[in-house]
Amino acid sequence: MTRRLRVAMIGGGKDAFIGAVHRHAMALDGRYELVAGAFSSSAEKAIASGKELGIADDRNHPDWRALLADEQRRPAHERVDLVVIVTPNHLHYDVAKAFVDAGFHVACDKPLVHTRAQADELVELVKQRGTAFAVTYNYTGYPMVREARELVKAGVIGKVRKVIVEYHQGWLAGAMERTSNKQSSWRTDPVQSGPGGALGDIGTHAENLLHTITGLEIEQLCAELTSFGAGRTLDDDASVLLRLTNSARGVLMASQMAIGHENDLRIRVFGETGSLDWRQEEPNTLIHSPLDEPPRKLTRGSANLSDAAKRACRLPPGHPEGFIEAFANLYTDLAADLRNNTRSGDYPRIEDGARGVRFVERAVASNGLWIDF
Amino acid sequence: MTRRLRVAMIGGGKDAFIGAVHRHAMALDGRYELVAGAFSSSAEKAIASGKELGIADDRNHPDWRALLADEQRRPAHERVDLVVIVTPNHLHYDVAKAFVDAGFHVACDKPLVHTRAQADELVELVKQRGTAFAVTYNYTGYPMVREARELVKAGVIGKVRKVIVEYHQGWLAGAMERTSNKQSSWRTDPVQSGPGGALGDIGTHAENLLHTITGLEIEQLCAELTSFGAGRTLDDDASVLLRLTNSARGVLMASQMAIGHENDLRIRVFGETGSLDWRQEEPNTLIHSPLDEPPRKLTRGSANLSDAAKRACRLPPGHPEGFIEAFANLYTDLAADLRNNTRSGDYPRIEDGARGVRFVERAVASNGLWIDF
Amino acid sequence: MTRRLRVAMIGGGKDAFIGAVHRHAMALDGRYELVAGAFSSSAEKAIASGKELGIADDRNHPDWRALLADEQRRPAHERVDLVVIVTPNHLHYDVAKAFVDAGFHVACDKPLVHTRAQADELVELVKQRGTAFAVTYNYTGYPMVREARELVKAGVIGKVRKVIVEYHQGWLAGAMERTSNKQSSWRTDPVQSGPGGALGDIGTHAENLLHTITGLEIEQLCAELTSFGAGRTLDDDASVLLRLTNSARGVLMASQMAIGHENDLRIRVFGETGSLDWRQEEPNTLIHSPLDEPPRKLTRGSANLSDAAKRACRLPPGHPEGFIEAFANLYTDLAADLRNNTRSGDYPRIEDGARGVRFVERAVASNGLWIDF
Amino acid sequence: MTRRLRVAMIGGGKDAFIGAVHRHAMALDGRYELVAGAFSSSAEKAIASGKELGIADDRNHPDWRALLADEQRRPAHERVDLVVIVTPNHLHYDVAKAFVDAGFHVACDKPLVHTRAQADELVELVKQRGTAFAVTYNYTGYPMVREARELVKAGVIGKVRKVIVEYHQGWLAGAMERTSNKQSSWRTDPVQSGPGGALGDIGTHAENLLHTITGLEIEQLCAELTSFGAGRTLDDDASVLLRLTNSARGVLMASQMAIGHENDLRIRVFGETGSLDWRQEEPNTLIHSPLDEPPRKLTRGSANLSDAAKRACRLPPGHPEGFIEAFANLYTDLAADLRNNTRSGDYPRIEDGARGVRFVERAVASNGLWIDF
Repeated sequence: MTRRLRVAMIGGGKDAFIGAVHRHAMALDGRYELVAGAFSSSAEKAIASGKELGIADDRNHPDWRALLADEQRRPAHERVDLVVIVTPNHLHYDVAKAFVDAGFHVACDKPLVHTRAQADELVELVKQRGTAFAVTYNYTGYPMVREARELVKAGVIGKVRKVIVEYHQGWLAGAMERTSNKQSSWRTDPVQSGPGGALGDIGTHAENLLHTITGLEIEQLCAELTSFGAGRTLDDDASVLLRLTNSARGVLMASQMAIGHENDLRIRVFGETGSLDWRQEEPNTLIHSPLDEPPRKLTRGSANLSDAAKRACRLPPGHPEGFIEAFANLYTDLAADLRNNTRSGDYPRIEDGARGVRFVERAVASNGLWIDF
Repeated sequence: MTRRLRVAMIGGGKDAFIGAVHRHAMALDGRYELVAGAFSSSAEKAIASGKELGIADDRNHPDWRALLADEQRRPAHERVDLVVIVTPNHLHYDVAKAFVDAGFHVACDKPLVHTRAQADELVELVKQRGTAFAVTYNYTGYPMVREARELVKAGVIGKVRKVIVEYHQGWLAGAMERTSNKQSSWRTDPVQSGPGGALGDIGTHAENLLHTITGLEIEQLCAELTSFGAGRTLDDDASVLLRLTNSARGVLMASQMAIGHENDLRIRVFGETGSLDWRQEEPNTLIHSPLDEPPRKLTRGSANLSDAAKRACRLPPGHPEGFIEAFANLYTDLAADLRNNTRSGDYPRIEDGARGVRFVERAVASNGLWIDF
Repeated sequence: MTRRLRVAMIGGGKDAFIGAVHRHAMALDGRYELVAGAFSSSAEKAIASGKELGIADDRNHPDWRALLADEQRRPAHERVDLVVIVTPNHLHYDVAKAFVDAGFHVACDKPLVHTRAQADELVELVKQRGTAFAVTYNYTGYPMVREARELVKAGVIGKVRKVIVEYHQGWLAGAMERTSNKQSSWRTDPVQSGPGGALGDIGTHAENLLHTITGLEIEQLCAELTSFGAGRTLDDDASVLLRLTNSARGVLMASQMAIGHENDLRIRVFGETGSLDWRQEEPNTLIHSPLDEPPRKLTRGSANLSDAAKRACRLPPGHPEGFIEAFANLYTDLAADLRNNTRSGDYPRIEDGARGVRFVERAVASNGLWIDF
Repeated sequence: MTRRLRVAMIGGGKDAFIGAVHRHAMALDGRYELVAGAFSSSAEKAIASGKELGIADDRNHPDWRALLADEQRRPAHERVDLVVIVTPNHLHYDVAKAFVDAGFHVACDKPLVHTRAQADELVELVKQRGTAFAVTYNYTGYPMVREARELVKAGVIGKVRKVIVEYHQGWLAGAMERTSNKQSSWRTDPVQSGPGGALGDIGTHAENLLHTITGLEIEQLCAELTSFGAGRTLDDDASVLLRLTNSARGVLMASQMAIGHENDLRIRVFGETGSLDWRQEEPNTLIHSPLDEPPRKLTRGSANLSDAAKRACRLPPGHPEGFIEAFANLYTDLAADLRNNTRSGDYPRIEDGARGVRFVERAVASNGLWIDF
């Protein structure tokens, strides 16, 4: 066995939801070791979080710039192999830019950055530096999402005609941001979250899922954004009509005031000879309906799946794998790229992140009218 | 027991789908008796169909005008109590107008007519004549649809914020109209069906369901209509964004090329303090999700339903009632109005039919832009 | 069209659940006309019920013996074609015997009678008289039950190894029989219901479903019967192990104190090369799982069903048909036998009824031990 | 942060299913470090497996006795904190006995051992040595299983009347053991697996789940064991009637030839005032049906769960946690006991393992008759 890859984490301190998820995901398959961090923009909280996570004092930093400086000083055999960025969105740009510029490989949460200009700049920089850059659209790590992608690619449902992708949550139906909920406060603040509310937080996942599975690009969109929560400036509900490449059509819905839905990302892809239906809350199954034949329930772990899906399974059918496992699949594929210095792994790239930023930007700009993407 | 109501049927001969449904629905509760008919626009087929249905020769007519003339000649105690119109859509206008004008009560299938002008004229005529006029938006007859309406009315889910209503079918995914399928040939022909394809055939059901349950009206809409089937002139897929009264928002989807969906009408209503979710293919249940509480599965026949829902149940919980039973509920409520000469029954009226016609007309006119309703 | 078949009903007066179901079922397809009745063992209630149902005075009888005498007096062209017996169970025997003996065709609810001796006698009598005798095990009328039977018969799942059939209801979980609920009072009374409680009321349906679909017979059984309700003398819960013909095994469960289940009859048939799974509360689908292939959802109304299933469908896929429709299918098939004087229709016979009586008798006798059937 | 606990693993080499699961589970929360192993009974395979897993050469042993000797030689600060036993069942006894006797803490897979005598001996030994001993009945680690247990304990469904627990798999429906499938060959071999086939492999999980959630003990049982697979000596199908403490009744089914079921463990608990329904394949939900009220869908991660359930959640509602997470919960709770030298953690103990052994033994002895447990 080769050594574990060394990781530094920026953000993701105490009480942060997504930082802990990244740590579980990296731990699951034993390919990574968290050795350094700057876990918060509050120096005090950063240090405390690092201690709790067992980070050695000399690699537990009060801010990310100190971490970067320290890593640059270290010899290669000590230096981290990967920098994981899990700060609130508004910090992604500065942090990612600095680390990529310094030649570090990066895994960054989504949405990538706030503006298309920032995104384009980063894409260019990554290209120049040749570093690996994963954007953790984690839902693409689910085996049955990969199976869906492979089935579309293999022509099993024919030319894609229409895609309906919806991401419904209900947790912002009340006025969560006025309670002490840390998640809701920054996610409803445009300075920290960017121009999109539900659109940025979950709509980008929906957009990415659509693109990942179908390979289609948005050509034009018409977006209706609404803020139902009193005093909320960002959208908490978005309904978007899409015109896609290859004459396909789409509907994308993202809402965080949809009571009764917890984390209900669903995609339906309708082709000329079949359809696919996948739901994140029951991620181990994928419904494939061939034209004029009974729907079939495909299941994770089955012998008849594609290689791409099989590689993403740890357990036999009927032994549910969940959110962390899907997340871990991205890290596993990234690990192979880092070890072999390849760039061919099965995980979303900075271009996917940039597409998401553009999606938010164009949807906000649409203001109810059809505009080009 | 009072006598059965006498019914004449226009259209609905051999091989017609919806005519047979109306007959089953009228038969189920024993309140109607089919005594007269002009079952087809082909005289020969009309007569043959009537014979098969056991209609007496003197009331089995080669065309609807003959039937109307005959009925007008008959004494009141023989004359039909109700005329049921189940012809292809393009004939609704002439037939309905003639019978209403002559003072007959009518039940007419949807979509009501082809144009808003025709619809408005009929609405006015019905008002003048004072006749009963039911439009068979049959899905409103389901007990759990009525329960949903009552829950919204009672404020159980608070102010309605958003409605997602979708009606997905897959039967036109292939090129059914070039086969011998009678249903598909007239339903994809604009002359017979009117300006809407999927929009008219099933989108109007979706629009009516939204209105029935929430009481909200469409103020503006933005519709994307598409014909995926080769050589098809009418839409077989429609995605419509809605701005509703009381600042609510909506998404309405109707498609007949959605492989894997059979007759999948679903409505989700999101309010400030709860949501409702109902699917026609599992019509005996209604999911009610209160804010911050577990979702509850409400079931047809239960003791804790509203009176309006209970009145629509024949059987105890767990004994499924289906499509015909829902249809029959409209006829049962209409029967009470006919018997008591009231107009208070729980069934859709000509105004609902007119709203549907307007919906199709405005959606076609929208052409991807927001327009006023 | 031929004339409607004339029907007399014994039992099924006001407030009776199953009588009304039979009437709806007979009405649905327009093949029957209820012309005579003795609707209750209370003369007063019998007459009142008949009036309400529109029965002519001279055929509305205070008791069934009067009805029988009257029918025997009438000329053939007036006499009823069918006698429907929907009394409480303890009256089935006398009534059925008298009518069969007099040469009438009969449809009788289940369980047929109280004892095996009575059942055998009736079987013999029906054979002698040559009359039609349907036992309304209504669940066999569901199209997807027939599809299951045809699939087994065609060998699609291979040799049957095991059957699990369960019928769970929760309505007797409380002490319903001490409230005013008419259903629960007679169903928990051994004098009226017979030796089986849940076993007789719903266990017999489960036993019949098993036999209908698989064609297998019980060779030995081991039954655990329990009365959970305080002061209840009949079982409200039964768990039965079965050894079936052809070396198959079975588990049959019937319970009326299973809170959370409404009328939840489910059967799973496991064969050497596939399995079937059907649930009464979602009767329009049947899951077929072939060995080493994804499960397929077969749906009522589909083009790829067997003829036996197709004949039992009125509506296209996705338009739910329910309990009454299944019930009506038995009556429709019986009507053909009555009209053509054949005995080949697709409905349960007196032998099935007798098998059910024996099942109850043997299960009660088992008392926790394996005994021969 | 305290140091990671050092672990030695016995068995679980290349191609072993459950060994890998244990490693993922230990890795997930970062509390354990695998430092030693004897990964196979084949010395060559053991060493190769250890190398692949990154075990240092001096702690990578050709057999478990060598490992034990080596560990006993090491100073406390090097010695492993926990020995994980994941060998085929027939080796559990010798290995567990040796390590417990030497004072090591143990986590052992189920079924614990082959005979009740062995089990009793181990129970006694553990008591004497005072070591921690977890038996990895992993399904008890699911948050919603813990929620079910807490709800029963709190009296939310009243006195338990009946439990139906079923564990259905289909993977042995064909003749898997004659193919190269490693899992099926040892699991169908009585020498390696013990006296129970499906009964031991999955029936013990069912038995443990029943006991864990309800706290009830089996008083008497009547078991029907069958081998459907040609030439198979162990049962591949078991149906067991149970008489439980407190006058409750139960049905336990375990089958590995149930085509269409992958790993379908389900438990239904019926009480006097409510019921619970949980399925392993959708482990994030638990249906609670209160008497006379609509069923409620409780979900993992919700604010209204018990503390015991909440402690077992890593993610918010709607973010599925699966099999490995449940498994990891046992290890997390065991870690606390190991660190604090307590024995109060929420994981199954050797007594639970012994109960499972006894269950298999008594079910085999029953041979279709009721016998005392």
